[in-house]
Amino acid sequence: MNNLRSVHAEDMEDIAIGGAVLGTGGGDPYIGKLMAQQAIRKHGPVKLIDVEELPDDALVVPVCMMGAPTVMTEKLPQGEELMNAFRQLEHVLGRKIDAVICVEAGGVNSTIPFVVAAATGLPLIDGDGMGRAYPELQMVTFTLHGVSATPMVLCDDKGNSIVLDTVSNAWTERLARSATVEMGGSALLAFYPMSGAVAKKSVVRGTLTLCANLGLTLREARAAHEDPVAAVVDMLGAKVIFHGRVKDIERRTVGGFARGTAHFDGVEDWRGHTFKLDFQNEFLMAERDGEILVTTPELITLLEADSGNPVTADSLKYGLRLVAIAFPCNAQWRSPEGIALVGPRYFGYDIDYTPFDFA
Amino acid sequence: MNNLRSVHAEDMEDIAIGGAVLGTGGGDPYIGKLMAQQAIRKHGPVKLIDVEELPDDALVVPVCMMGAPTVMTEKLPQGEELMNAFRQLEHVLGRKIDAVICVEAGGVNSTIPFVVAAATGLPLIDGDGMGRAYPELQMVTFTLHGVSATPMVLCDDKGNSIVLDTVSNAWTERLARSATVEMGGSALLAFYPMSGAVAKKSVVRGTLTLCANLGLTLREARAAHEDPVAAVVDMLGAKVIFHGRVKDIERRTVGGFARGTAHFDGVEDWRGHTFKLDFQNEFLMAERDGEILVTTPELITLLEADSGNPVTADSLKYGLRLVAIAFPCNAQWRSPEGIALVGPRYFGYDIDYTPFDFA
Repeated sequence: MNNLRSVHAEDMEDIAIGGAVLGTGGGDPYIGKLMAQQAIRKHGPVKLIDVEELPDDALVVPVCMMGAPTVMTEKLPQGEELMNAFRQLEHVLGRKIDAVICVEAGGVNSTIPFVVAAATGLPLIDGDGMGRAYPELQMVTFTLHGVSATPMVLCDDKGNSIVLDTVSNAWTERLARSATVEMGGSALLAFYPMSGAVAKKSVVRGTLTLCANLGLTLREARAAHEDPVAAVVDMLGAKVIFHGRVKDIERRTVGGFARGTAHFDGVEDWRGHTFKLDFQNEFLMAERDGEILVTTPELITLLEADSGNPVTADSLKYGLRLVAIAFPCNAQWRSPEGIALVGPRYFGYDIDYTPFDFA
Repeated sequence: MNNLRSVHAEDMEDIAIGGAVLGTGGGDPYIGKLMAQQAIRKHGPVKLIDVEELPDDALVVPVCMMGAPTVMTEKLPQGEELMNAFRQLEHVLGRKIDAVICVEAGGVNSTIPFVVAAATGLPLIDGDGMGRAYPELQMVTFTLHGVSATPMVLCDDKGNSIVLDTVSNAWTERLARSATVEMGGSALLAFYPMSGAVAKKSVVRGTLTLCANLGLTLREARAAHEDPVAAVVDMLGAKVIFHGRVKDIERRTVGGFARGTAHFDGVEDWRGHTFKLDFQNEFLMAERDGEILVTTPELITLLEADSGNPVTADSLKYGLRLVAIAFPCNAQWRSPEGIALVGPRYFGYDIDYTPFDFA
């Protein structure tokens, strides 16, 4: 297993694979990985620290990309917009930022913050604000700890920038989302400025190391001709919930999100059964044989049956043979406040959150 | 005629009427008038100055309300949002503002800036950035003189605020418009910070005095049992282009604008003729008997046939008997750059601007 303290360009390969597993179908970490590798080759390796190493009065800032993954892959971000957002937030706050953190450990935002950490030489915290990926920016453990998303800086590829100061993180999401849509579907952000003391309470710890270890596990299992899916399932304490082929997939980009539903027909042990996955960037709800099986905040991920490689909602295609797995979310999400923020009702499903039996 | 140097609460009555005439169908200055009167009663009269009285290095800032007039009348602004925007822009610029100016001399924005001038004690420039009203925020003479609309501060009634920094005034319009829509349809802005030197070149001068004189002229004509429409026409060098009754009116609120078309049947001299007015907040194009008669940037206004009172696009109703008049725009709008910014093609009409014969 990895015990990363210093992340080199080649380490980003495993981290990006792990980021796609925790990404639960959201954006592919691939683009962020390429950007991170370029930045690390230019500026040197990124120092990874545990949140406990921070002084209580340190200033910690998450950076991320906002938008529909569908758009991001067509509209490549430049590192520059991200650094603009970061430096502008320092200017607004009137002080230097001491450490960078990922807002989510999945999708493009599991790799993008390495660009800023490399370019600035600042440490990156081994952790994030979700322990997974989520589609809306108020959906972070930071919100559960009363951290305001603003002041927030949002930059686009054209040179436009926006500083937001809002009355709630839900308002930040609304205003930033409409700006992102207007800016062409994606934008770069620096937001949720917080102290080291607050970061210690709120951060989901160790998730970048977990990403690296997921990538390593998959690689080693394949090299040893072992079952890579079983290796990932074992590592995550996950449960296989389906094995099937994509039969049908509906997609639409609505309000800046990639929304849709994928339908599967079972193969092998699951022959004769059906499976359905709803997504809003990320997979949110799985139904098997017409019954709701597992929902957000638990994590649902699709892996290629043979390689064990994670598959995003974006790249789902007719005929792909995939294994669906579910695994437990961070405990913070199971609190009443957590369920209110990211539970099934928030996403419009008329059902209560029911804990899934991972045994 | 007025030669206003100090504007008292009661002076706002005439100014608001004149603002509705120059408003060419856009928002009613009524709400802004009430706010201005309240602010003047509390803080004292507003000092009106000619732009030439400003030092070249003075900092001049327009303030305004953005949104569809249809929304504004239902969602009353508080003076507070406006002062928030103004003070935040001072903070962003790192210096005190020396004078306030109207971005437009028509509609709600002909009266709203009096609120800030009264509350701050700063002088208000007798002039504006249009000599009329227009629906989009890049449509100001300031743009023709290379003034950037940003840094701009935008505040809503909930306490959210946005600082924009954009690569063009067209981008400011796009981003501010989508934010305004998201904020519920209206927002308060402070923007286009400029020096006294630039203000001297770009401002359309004397338009607040013109507003006051239009209101006075209407009042005096009615008191003397003279024809109020004729008095306004005479004062503006305008031409009556129709007299008729509203037959039909289509409205839709699209992308934060009140758009629509009004159809009229002629009465008296115009019996047997038809008339059609297109608007996007403001009246943009008049057709008579199916032929295009006059377009933006010339001003088109509707007056009640009996009282001479101006009528907004918002308050058009079946059966109203109205006189349509056209009058010349400020010469800056007739330059190629002016026509590109506010001419008929910008608004989607496939015609060139043809000067109207006001003789």
